[in-house]
Amino acid sequence: MTIDQVATPALIIDVDGLDRNIAAMAVIRPGTSLRPHVKATKCTTLARRQVAAGHTNFTCATVREMVGMAQADLGYDLLLANEVVDVEKLAALAKVQDVAKITVAIDSDETLRAAATAGIENVLIDVNVGLPRCGCDPEMAGNLADQARRAGLNVRGVMGYEGHLMMVMDRADQRRKVEEAMAILRRAAADVGGDIISGGGTGSCDLHDTTGVTEVQAGSYSLMDSQYSKLGLPFEQAMWILGTVISRSPKWSVINVGLKSLCMDHGNPSVSGQSVWFCSDEHTTIAADEGPQLALGAPVRVTPAHIDPTIAMHEGAWIVRGNEIIDRWNIDLRGW
Amino acid sequence: MTIDQVATPALIIDVDGLDRNIAAMAVIRPGTSLRPHVKATKCTTLARRQVAAGHTNFTCATVREMVGMAQADLGYDLLLANEVVDVEKLAALAKVQDVAKITVAIDSDETLRAAATAGIENVLIDVNVGLPRCGCDPEMAGNLADQARRAGLNVRGVMGYEGHLMMVMDRADQRRKVEEAMAILRRAAADVGGDIISGGGTGSCDLHDTTGVTEVQAGSYSLMDSQYSKLGLPFEQAMWILGTVISRSPKWSVINVGLKSLCMDHGNPSVSGQSVWFCSDEHTTIAADEGPQLALGAPVRVTPAHIDPTIAMHEGAWIVRGNEIIDRWNIDLRGW
Repeated sequence: MTIDQVATPALIIDVDGLDRNIAAMAVIRPGTSLRPHVKATKCTTLARRQVAAGHTNFTCATVREMVGMAQADLGYDLLLANEVVDVEKLAALAKVQDVAKITVAIDSDETLRAAATAGIENVLIDVNVGLPRCGCDPEMAGNLADQARRAGLNVRGVMGYEGHLMMVMDRADQRRKVEEAMAILRRAAADVGGDIISGGGTGSCDLHDTTGVTEVQAGSYSLMDSQYSKLGLPFEQAMWILGTVISRSPKWSVINVGLKSLCMDHGNPSVSGQSVWFCSDEHTTIAADEGPQLALGAPVRVTPAHIDPTIAMHEGAWIVRGNEIIDRWNIDLRGW
Repeated sequence: MTIDQVATPALIIDVDGLDRNIAAMAVIRPGTSLRPHVKATKCTTLARRQVAAGHTNFTCATVREMVGMAQADLGYDLLLANEVVDVEKLAALAKVQDVAKITVAIDSDETLRAAATAGIENVLIDVNVGLPRCGCDPEMAGNLADQARRAGLNVRGVMGYEGHLMMVMDRADQRRKVEEAMAILRRAAADVGGDIISGGGTGSCDLHDTTGVTEVQAGSYSLMDSQYSKLGLPFEQAMWILGTVISRSPKWSVINVGLKSLCMDHGNPSVSGQSVWFCSDEHTTIAADEGPQLALGAPVRVTPAHIDPTIAMHEGAWIVRGNEIIDRWNIDLRGW
């Protein structure tokens, strides 16, 4: 079967590109110095390839991802790098502690209490390192760790996500800023104790050799998107949304890929040799950079600007080598 | 059960607001002068309420929506207002012609051929009225209809979507522009024949009293979003994404609603009494317009800027009356 036989729109993953990306990252952050983030790809089949490359520990953003990874026998060491105040959800997570090592991020008295009430055994203190999102005041991290230990929880260390620095385009400037953010995290780690200092992402994965971070939480690197590709990292585009030209005029053509099959919060997607005019619910209008418009029925690979929410829109991915379909993987960790 | 017991993020629909919107539209476009668009809501349970208000005919954007509506005994008169060149998909649609009246839009020789090959019985000529997307050159519409009839297809008329005019904020200006676009469609209709002239959307639903359009394809009106609410139409917001405050600082709070549970191609969502700073994959950072930040664990109703792709992210919706949960509806027409 080849890609022109696939019903579109469809998520496609180039398996050789994926494997090259995984291999390139395993050089930069070998073994457990990388804790791949599951939120980007939501696929246990893909995660197994990361395990095969030496990365046994994973980061998750949702309870669904945590439980799904545990049930797929990928629970060697799972970190929920997100806050949850819902005790019922955390209790469901606590239930898989007999088959998986589970650690949950906390950043407040309330998240601590929720974790303790639900019977979670291990926590990590989430520290704010500059992104206006989750994480406690760095000055409060040691105190929160003390409270957690008094509540009977094992405190494994700290995490701090410098998400505001992922897209600093000048890499020397980025390195300096990441170092400053991680200096905050190191000080909090000294107050908290434990042996984990977790941070980073795809955009900063090669900048943590001197930051003291023990593990980097990168996810997008395995498949990439057009935004991260601007940074010149050693990863290639390995996923696309496959569409079909369904309408054309002398000045543009229209493909059946739109806002329900890709996310454009980071801007329009891109198509090789074409200008993207706009996306609507079911369509993207494109125009050839030169020559005639694409033929009706032509398959078109669309590169999204942001991988994570795009993949979450699809039930499965066709796995391709060139234009040949070699497998289908479920995107099995969707939902919450 | 009340909304503070719901696991979040979750899609919630206010049933009384929905019913008021449906009733208000049934005054503007009664009976079959409205052909509600299923793509906005993707829910057969919701569609039944539109049928109860007199709208028996529906518009769809995907084969999945068409087949799902037919299988739910809602196939009185279903229009696929979108082009499909995939003969296999159209053949699956042709199979439900014994239980549903199926009409498919065509705008080219190729889409005509695909429909004829698949055994589709009824078509409509999709005419471009100014939006650079689907639809044939208006001058070619009559010729395409002749070809379709020669191929044995029944041509029911024309459609033309003035999507580029939905958000013209000056309504007098909007009325003038919609009339110009529909003048193009009327001329094409005269060449094509048949008794359907289909057009419009929520943003122009009340402007078609003099355009010659026989039916308006509006979908968003039933639940609304923050973009359409700017137009001052007689519809109220009746759906939200329910989130929970999971982290807070003195300057902001963070809710567990992000790019995987709402679409922001039309801009940031809104939250009453709060400024929305930014959305990320799993989070939205908000700040109180005055007073202290929201409490940890507080439920928060988030109004998306664009309803259609937001609803498509959810497997189901909680149906509420005030803060009480009274039902759950499946969003059963997702996918393609």
